[in-house]
Amino acid sequence: MSLINKRLSELARDVGGRVIGDGQVLIQNVASIEDAGPGEITFLANPRYQSHLSRCRASAIIVGPGVIKDDSVQETGKGYLEISDPYLAFARVLQMFARPVRYDKKISLRASVDPTASLGADVTLFPGVFVGAGVRVGRETVLYPGVFLGDGAQVGDGCVLHPNVVVREGCCIGNRVILHAGVVVGSDGFGYAGHGDGRIKIPQVGTVEIQDDVEIGANTTVDRATFGKTVIERRAKIDNLVQIAHNVTVGENSIIAAQVGIAGSTRIGKDVTLLGQVGVLNHLRIGDGATIGPQSGIPRSVPPGVVLSGGIADAPHHEWLKVMTLLPQLPKLWNLVRALEKKVSDLVKGGDQNHASHVRR
Amino acid sequence: MSLINKRLSELARDVGGRVIGDGQVLIQNVASIEDAGPGEITFLANPRYQSHLSRCRASAIIVGPGVIKDDSVQETGKGYLEISDPYLAFARVLQMFARPVRYDKKISLRASVDPTASLGADVTLFPGVFVGAGVRVGRETVLYPGVFLGDGAQVGDGCVLHPNVVVREGCCIGNRVILHAGVVVGSDGFGYAGHGDGRIKIPQVGTVEIQDDVEIGANTTVDRATFGKTVIERRAKIDNLVQIAHNVTVGENSIIAAQVGIAGSTRIGKDVTLLGQVGVLNHLRIGDGATIGPQSGIPRSVPPGVVLSGGIADAPHHEWLKVMTLLPQLPKLWNLVRALEKKVSDLVKGGDQNHASHVRR
Amino acid sequence: MSLINKRLSELARDVGGRVIGDGQVLIQNVASIEDAGPGEITFLANPRYQSHLSRCRASAIIVGPGVIKDDSVQETGKGYLEISDPYLAFARVLQMFARPVRYDKKISLRASVDPTASLGADVTLFPGVFVGAGVRVGRETVLYPGVFLGDGAQVGDGCVLHPNVVVREGCCIGNRVILHAGVVVGSDGFGYAGHGDGRIKIPQVGTVEIQDDVEIGANTTVDRATFGKTVIERRAKIDNLVQIAHNVTVGENSIIAAQVGIAGSTRIGKDVTLLGQVGVLNHLRIGDGATIGPQSGIPRSVPPGVVLSGGIADAPHHEWLKVMTLLPQLPKLWNLVRALEKKVSDLVKGGDQNHASHVRR
Repeated sequence: MSLINKRLSELARDVGGRVIGDGQVLIQNVASIEDAGPGEITFLANPRYQSHLSRCRASAIIVGPGVIKDDSVQETGKGYLEISDPYLAFARVLQMFARPVRYDKKISLRASVDPTASLGADVTLFPGVFVGAGVRVGRETVLYPGVFLGDGAQVGDGCVLHPNVVVREGCCIGNRVILHAGVVVGSDGFGYAGHGDGRIKIPQVGTVEIQDDVEIGANTTVDRATFGKTVIERRAKIDNLVQIAHNVTVGENSIIAAQVGIAGSTRIGKDVTLLGQVGVLNHLRIGDGATIGPQSGIPRSVPPGVVLSGGIADAPHHEWLKVMTLLPQLPKLWNLVRALEKKVSDLVKGGDQNHASHVRR
Repeated sequence: MSLINKRLSELARDVGGRVIGDGQVLIQNVASIEDAGPGEITFLANPRYQSHLSRCRASAIIVGPGVIKDDSVQETGKGYLEISDPYLAFARVLQMFARPVRYDKKISLRASVDPTASLGADVTLFPGVFVGAGVRVGRETVLYPGVFLGDGAQVGDGCVLHPNVVVREGCCIGNRVILHAGVVVGSDGFGYAGHGDGRIKIPQVGTVEIQDDVEIGANTTVDRATFGKTVIERRAKIDNLVQIAHNVTVGENSIIAAQVGIAGSTRIGKDVTLLGQVGVLNHLRIGDGATIGPQSGIPRSVPPGVVLSGGIADAPHHEWLKVMTLLPQLPKLWNLVRALEKKVSDLVKGGDQNHASHVRR
Repeated sequence: MSLINKRLSELARDVGGRVIGDGQVLIQNVASIEDAGPGEITFLANPRYQSHLSRCRASAIIVGPGVIKDDSVQETGKGYLEISDPYLAFARVLQMFARPVRYDKKISLRASVDPTASLGADVTLFPGVFVGAGVRVGRETVLYPGVFLGDGAQVGDGCVLHPNVVVREGCCIGNRVILHAGVVVGSDGFGYAGHGDGRIKIPQVGTVEIQDDVEIGANTTVDRATFGKTVIERRAKIDNLVQIAHNVTVGENSIIAAQVGIAGSTRIGKDVTLLGQVGVLNHLRIGDGATIGPQSGIPRSVPPGVVLSGGIADAPHHEWLKVMTLLPQLPKLWNLVRALEKKVSDLVKGGDQNHASHVRR
């Protein structure tokens, strides 16, 4: 990383927070709590890792409220930055120290650009880029080798399209969008009508709209709509190897972890979190702020704010955990019930005999 | 889409069906039932959406039998096309209106074509295509930028290979095949022998055969066989991010949804449907016409025609739904059984006391 | 395959094992037990396929100990190679017969190589390769069309990077590594801090280290670390469409099947096997030698050597199989318990009535 030199007190001015201990320590780099050494800053966000604190060799540590007592800090040449969201503060510090990639703002002679395409100021086109007819690319956007922009595609300002990203014809990418290597935007939705040899392809004549500040992970696929648009709203973040089917909407600020699959026409609300390998069926609505646990299969719409796991059973998270704990005991339960059944039936017989003996008596 | 102008009565002649209401309405475009307006045609296939009918502003609507009563149609300048499979009819209309992509049928000077390769008439090779030694490409086939055809690969007539598709050496693609961006055909099957440091790679010396009219979704992978061939039979349709392992056969007209994984040497029959994220173990047979619900894991062969969900339990679909409904009640069941157990054991003790009292008496 | 001619007795000298029957049979090729004919060698590793033996037309068959009785072999012109691990022996024979791909060891004029990059002897760079600043590529390494090596990336000796592989800046690939088409190494880890509109990206300033003799399947993604390194240790084998998140370690000799997802900072031990579509949560440890069954979700660390299936329930494999067998009977169990409950409650009432009658009497 960079050759920046900052005192902890200066950093505190930039990102906020209160300095405890030595505010004059000089910070030159950022590292994890296990690896950080002198001249480096790190953070402690998860109280579970508090035991790392004493062993930590960093010059400065960003911590949550109350983690460090003022009087416990000796003159050890260490400083602490106390702040309500240490992880967020740390991310800001990291952004300061991370060396920004410098692009040469040139259009490689080995890029193929249709004469009807329009390229903004300061774009960088690496060798092997293909830009189709009528394409518009905004200013300062970077297209790495192997990027393909189909006819009529639009890409906004300040985007980075990593190697081998494909944006097919007519699709529209906003500003400051990051598409990681191998992302495919605008491949045909999976639609057929009829059966057997009579099955025919439904032309997918819609497009994809990816709004500002979206980031999409490597080899993820976003299909074009049958009609209209598949939409990824502003600031949504999508991980690697995710499948977004035709006519899906992913709401703003939503988080979609790796290998999730969302079937056609489903609407994911705002601020939704879908954890890894979740599958959501078609034509559903996932309400704003809902969180779906890993590997859940979602067969029904989900109301806003709900936390769900193992969605096929449609159980709230804590109930599902109980279920999952009991599941391995199902064979035991089964035997228990069998034994019970026998006992009761013996009892019933015994009762009859009792009764009989009463009668006989 | 296109600038085609057709009267509803003309469309009826082309795709079949009976006109109800105004057959003279002019159709210029196609849209969804929510978005369609004057001059547009739409369809109603799912009775659940029947409520959209009254609000629909389209000039013409394709409907199933009995949806529209002849005498209920006022002179509103609207027409209906009644037909047994409205979705199929609609797909046909859409195919008429969808503007076909026009290719320039040129071989880019920036494509790399081995002198021993043979290219059919009217092929289009975009910049950055690579065609290896001995490759044969059929007529009117389109190879988008970044397509790689390894030595000896064969691609039939009228195919479209979207950007960055990889077809490795010796693999064979039929006619009218569509491979979406990032598809990899013929990467090595996952095969090793031995253990630990003694483990060695099993050379994958087979190939892949993809038959006529197959369509494969973005970033899907189809591995080459250890020996012989991995086969995707005619008219099979495969969605995005699917894994087809070595020596698998996918039968004709089968439908495989996104993120499905099929392990080595498994044979998927004809007309099979595998829904999203299904996993099928190796060396199995999925019978013709079987349907497997989303996220199911299939550990055993499946007979023809069966509808399965949550395949790890090997339950027919409706039973599995019951299971999944009861699953969240497992903690309750467990408590219930515990209570029962106590009751019965009290009863047994009570009975003994009863008995004792009898004796004592 | 090749035009090699070897007698079975010669092969036995090369790979070990004992010849039974005719050691003079001439072997020209290798095939599966179903397809092998005269002049070909095959193998029988799985006793389940023993019935194929009698029908097999191969000239030679590699078998396990005791499969063939010496006196049962007639003078049929067939030979057998008896060896403890027939599959491993077969893989060795296959390696002998498989024709190695020959590369022209040239740097295509259509490859783009930064002047500061260093290329080892006998490298092959196909057209459309991109090699960034400061990159180092070892001797005899092959970079297929569309391969991208970001600034400062390092690739060792004897590697094969198939078409459209992306290795981003600063990532490090060992010797004899095979990366199949579409693999992405070093895309940004999925990390954000804050919430809603205040959410910011955590720069991923770490890298990826892929050690010697690793093989990674098509379209698999390996994210770069937030800090430090994501590590794939020597001889690990990873299948297609796998997701390896930031800061994960995959231990040496581990096997990871297709579509597995491993979340951030998790450490997979040595000799671990993860079967298809497994998901492992973040910050866990999977102990050396553990095996996780297909589609399992792993929410907790797993001790060394354990065999787990359906990991969400954290049950050992054989118990999980029992659970999965009973699961479809849950509705039946539920009804059974309900019936029981009624019986017992009737009994209790009956007992009270009994008691009452006693009193009345």
